[in-house]
Amino acid sequence: MDLPNQSTNLPEATVEAAVRRLKFDTAGLIPAIAQQHDTGEVLMVAWMSAESVRETLTTGRVCYWSRSRQALWRKGETSGHVQRLVEMRIDCDSDTLLVLVDQSGPACHTNRRNCFYTSVAPDGLRIIADPIADPN
Amino acid sequence: MDLPNQSTNLPEATVEAAVRRLKFDTAGLIPAIAQQHDTGEVLMVAWMSAESVRETLTTGRVCYWSRSRQALWRKGETSGHVQRLVEMRIDCDSDTLLVLVDQSGPACHTNRRNCFYTSVAPDGLRIIADPIADPN
Repeated sequence: MDLPNQSTNLPEATVEAAVRRLKFDTAGLIPAIAQQHDTGEVLMVAWMSAESVRETLTTGRVCYWSRSRQALWRKGETSGHVQRLVEMRIDCDSDTLLVLVDQSGPACHTNRRNCFYTSVAPDGLRIIADPIADPN
Repeated sequence: MDLPNQSTNLPEATVEAAVRRLKFDTAGLIPAIAQQHDTGEVLMVAWMSAESVRETLTTGRVCYWSRSRQALWRKGETSGHVQRLVEMRIDCDSDTLLVLVDQSGPACHTNRRNCFYTSVAPDGLRIIADPIADPN
């Protein structure tokens, strides 16, 4: 699927200031929480490298680092379920990112809207969300 | 500060089923996102050990693992800014927790309501929240 870049309003100096601020772990990665910007729904957690932070801030499309594939993971590149960047926030320790996004369709690879569909309920571990119909 | 236990409705079998389901990293830890249950605000991210997951689910008070102190970190034990557990959710890979909480006062050690107060804005890194008055 073709993903035309969305330009952001962030100048290169700001992008580099953000990358410099971040504390990446020994693998060069930082965890990123993706949150739907308008509903507050926590969609997923994944990892970013310095390169994926740069690409995300520059293109306005959220790009992670796939630890299993050891490669940039442009969210939605194959599924079409892209995340448009609304705002990136850095936590007080500079070691976690909160990425406010506009998610197209499901964020989860199980085709659920978000990845946190297993609830610890009194009667055990309960699945609280179904896969959604693909809007594409 | 005295933190009386809140009992939860979770039987021990459910607590143990949750712990068994989780994939802890090589240090025996799993990241946990704390989200205010009613507003959707992402408050903080911290780490839990199997023991802190058990304590959180059993007492109804959120308990993390402090990597710097290498000890259980009963949130609010000294500050009074406790997190009452509303619901714990597990993600699709069983390697991240979403903890829905009711947060008393600020969640952040800077006395801000949440830790994600630095925004990557066009004009640079911007502080978007002030410390709040301590309600206690």
